[in-house]
Amino acid sequence: MTEPEETAPTGLSRRGLLGLVGAGAAGIALGGGAAAAIALNTPNGVGVSTVYPFFGDHQAGITTPAQDRLHFAAYDLSAGTTRDDLIELLQDWTYAAARLTAGQEVTEGGAVDGSPLAPPDDTGEALGLPASGLTITFGFGPTLFTTDDGTDRFGIAAKKPDLLAKLPRFSGDALRPESGGGDLCIQACADDPQVAVHAIRNLSRIAFGRASIRWSQLGFGRTSSTSTAQVTPRNLFGFKDGTANIKAEDPTTVKAQVWVAEGDGPEWMTGGSYLVTRKIRMIIEAWDRTQLQEQENVIGRSKGEGAPLSGGREFTEPEFAATGAAGQELIPADSHVLLAHPTSTGGAQLLRRGYNFVDGNDELGRLDAGLFFISFQRSPEQFIAVQKNLARDALNEYIKHVGSAIFAVPPGATKNGYVGSGLFA
Amino acid sequence: MTEPEETAPTGLSRRGLLGLVGAGAAGIALGGGAAAAIALNTPNGVGVSTVYPFFGDHQAGITTPAQDRLHFAAYDLSAGTTRDDLIELLQDWTYAAARLTAGQEVTEGGAVDGSPLAPPDDTGEALGLPASGLTITFGFGPTLFTTDDGTDRFGIAAKKPDLLAKLPRFSGDALRPESGGGDLCIQACADDPQVAVHAIRNLSRIAFGRASIRWSQLGFGRTSSTSTAQVTPRNLFGFKDGTANIKAEDPTTVKAQVWVAEGDGPEWMTGGSYLVTRKIRMIIEAWDRTQLQEQENVIGRSKGEGAPLSGGREFTEPEFAATGAAGQELIPADSHVLLAHPTSTGGAQLLRRGYNFVDGNDELGRLDAGLFFISFQRSPEQFIAVQKNLARDALNEYIKHVGSAIFAVPPGATKNGYVGSGLFA
Repeated sequence: MTEPEETAPTGLSRRGLLGLVGAGAAGIALGGGAAAAIALNTPNGVGVSTVYPFFGDHQAGITTPAQDRLHFAAYDLSAGTTRDDLIELLQDWTYAAARLTAGQEVTEGGAVDGSPLAPPDDTGEALGLPASGLTITFGFGPTLFTTDDGTDRFGIAAKKPDLLAKLPRFSGDALRPESGGGDLCIQACADDPQVAVHAIRNLSRIAFGRASIRWSQLGFGRTSSTSTAQVTPRNLFGFKDGTANIKAEDPTTVKAQVWVAEGDGPEWMTGGSYLVTRKIRMIIEAWDRTQLQEQENVIGRSKGEGAPLSGGREFTEPEFAATGAAGQELIPADSHVLLAHPTSTGGAQLLRRGYNFVDGNDELGRLDAGLFFISFQRSPEQFIAVQKNLARDALNEYIKHVGSAIFAVPPGATKNGYVGSGLFA
Repeated sequence: MTEPEETAPTGLSRRGLLGLVGAGAAGIALGGGAAAAIALNTPNGVGVSTVYPFFGDHQAGITTPAQDRLHFAAYDLSAGTTRDDLIELLQDWTYAAARLTAGQEVTEGGAVDGSPLAPPDDTGEALGLPASGLTITFGFGPTLFTTDDGTDRFGIAAKKPDLLAKLPRFSGDALRPESGGGDLCIQACADDPQVAVHAIRNLSRIAFGRASIRWSQLGFGRTSSTSTAQVTPRNLFGFKDGTANIKAEDPTTVKAQVWVAEGDGPEWMTGGSYLVTRKIRMIIEAWDRTQLQEQENVIGRSKGEGAPLSGGREFTEPEFAATGAAGQELIPADSHVLLAHPTSTGGAQLLRRGYNFVDGNDELGRLDAGLFFISFQRSPEQFIAVQKNLARDALNEYIKHVGSAIFAVPPGATKNGYVGSGLFA
C-alpha cells in the first residue's frame, strides 16, 4: 500500500475554518481552531456507545456491522477549486471525521467553547449524544478525475482507475440525474440519525466554497447484516434482505470480493473498495396487492422465515435444481434469489449495506419509498455482472431504479495522513 | 364524556379488507380477516419493548413520553365517501391501531398466516420488531366538518367545534398548501422508525378508496421532552428545546392546558385536545454563520447548558427583569424564551411534541432541514396567542413556516368503541 504523505492534520485549514465562520469572522476564529489536536480517547458523549476507530488499513463503514441509520451525501467541487484546495479539503475532512467518529465535536472549540464573538465551529445538535457507532466513509467519483468533457482539473486523470466509470445503462433504469453522480461522497452511518445528520451537516459546512452537496439521502432501516451477530432485517417489501450477504466474519470472501488487492491497480486504491449506490423506488402499492405466493415466487424465499423455497431455514443454501410433485421448479428461474446468487453471476458477490427510505409521498398520496441500495466490491465489474443478470428478475415489475452513482473508496488513512493521500503522492 | 357507541371492532370491515387485498381477491381474504379479534396481550415482537395501551380516557401519543421517531400523515377523504364509510374507516383504523400499538400485525392473518392466494393483510416490514413504544393518534381537520365551499359531507357540520378553524395568517408565513391542511390525520410515534412507517403505511392501505394521504412527514429527533424523566433534546439550531415544556408529571398544568374539559364544548371533544402542526424550515446556513453570543441572545438561553441568560442552570426560571453591569437586559426583549413564556402570552402554554427533519437538500446544495413543530393544547387560542406573540421573535430571521395544519383530537376510545365515536352519536 502507498505510504500516505506525512501531513498530519492537527486542525482545520484556514479554508475549513472559513467555511465554519464565514468570511467576516475568520480572523477571530483562526487562533483557537487551527492548533487543536485530535484527542481520540475522550468522547464527550454521555451514556454507553460504540466507537469505531477512524484510522486503519481500511475505511470504517464497510465491514463494520451495519448501523441502523444513514445520511449519505454526494458533493460536486466548486468552480475554481484547485488541486491544493482539494487536498486541504480531504485533510480537513479527515481531521473532522476522526473527531466526530470519536464522539467529539468538529473542533476543540466546538459549539460552545469558542469565542462568543465568532460563529461556533460545531452546529451543536449532537452535544451530549454519544458516538452512536458513527462511521464516516469517503469516496471519489469518476468526475473527480476527469469531467464529462475530459478536463483534468486536479492533475489526477492519469491515476483514475480503469474500472471507475459511470455504470452502463441497465434494463429498467429510470435514472434522474439529480439523484446520481458526484465528484465526492460521504457515507455517514450511526445508530442515532441525529448523529449521522450532524456529521454530514458539519462536513458540508467545512467544505463551504470548495464543494457543495449534489444529492443526499437519509435512510432509516438497514437492509443488510454485515456481521453474523446481526439479525437479518426486512426491506419495505416485508422480506428479510441480505441473508446471503458477505459477512465480516468470513475474511476469505471479504478479501476476495471486497478489498482492492495489490496488483488490481492503481496502487493508491490497494486496501480500498468500490462503492455503488442505487436509489430504488419500490412500487409498494402494486406489490402490496400481489398474492403472498406470488411475492414468495418473485423473491424465491418464504416471507416469514426467509427460507429458500427449496426448503430448510433462513440460512439453508438454496437448491435451485429442486422440483415439486408436479415437476415444477421450487425456486422459479426468474426469482431474485436465483438471479442474484453467485452461481448465476459467475461467482460475483457484493457486500450490501443499503437502507430503507421514505421521502414523504407523491401527489397521488402514495408513499415515496424504497431501498437506497449500497454495495461495496473489489471491482465495479462485480456489481455490473449481478445487475445485468437481474434484467430477467421478476422483481423488476415492482421497482424502478431512479438514482445511480459509483465511487472509488480509498483505503483508510494513517494517523499521520489523510483519506485519499495516496492519490496525490 | 360522551359514551361511545357499542360497536366493538372485532375485525376489519369489508371495505378495509378490500383496501388490503385489492378488488380482485377480496372474496378470498374476507373469511380469515373479518372474524379476527383483538388479542392485545400477545405482542409478536421479539426483544424488550415498551407497549402503551391504545384504549383509555385520552388518546396516547400526547402526554406519552415523546418517542424518538415520527411518521405523520394527513389524509383527504375520497370523493363519494359517505358518513357510513367514514364511520367504518374510523372503526377499521381503531381495530388496526389497537393491534399495531400492541406490537401485533394489522390483522391476525398478518403478513404470512393468511391465504397464499391472497395478498397479505400486513406489509410485513415490522415482522419480528417489538412494539417500540408505538402510539397512534387520530385527529379531525376543519374540512372534515365543512369543506371550503361550505358543504356538510357527513352530516357533522353542526358538531364542529367553534375553535376548529384554519389558523390565521401569521407574520412570516410562507405556507405551501401541499404541506398543510387535511380532513384527517394520524400521528405515529415510536422508538424505531420502521415501526412508525409500518403503521402509517398499513393504515393508509386500509383507507384505500376512502381516504388518501394529502401530505406526510418523517421526523428523526424528538425536540421536546414530555416527561421529567427525559433528557432535553436539541433541535437543529443546536439548542436544547422544550426545557419549559408541559410535563406529564404536572397534572394540574396538563388538565388546565392540554385536555378539553366538560363545558369547553362540544361534548364529544371532552377529554380530547387540539393538535397544531407547523413545518418550520430552518435557514441553517445563516444561523451557522451567526456569532455564538448572538445565537444565545436570539434564544435567550446559553447554548451549552440551556440556562436562561439571567443565570442559573437549565431548569432555573428566567428572570426577565435582570440587567447587566451596563444596565442592559440580560434576556433581550425580542428573545424566543421571553416571547414564548407564559408571562408574555397571557398564561397560554403548549404541550410541544415536535421532531427534527431533514428532507434531503435543495438545488443549491443546502440541507432542506428544520423543525416539524407539533403542539397539543386545550384550545387553538393558546397556540394563536403564542404564535402572534412570536411575530417580534428575533428567531424569525432564521426560520420560515412552510406548512400548517390543525386537527381536533377526540378523546380515547373505549374497548367497545372506536376513535371519534362521540362525533356520530
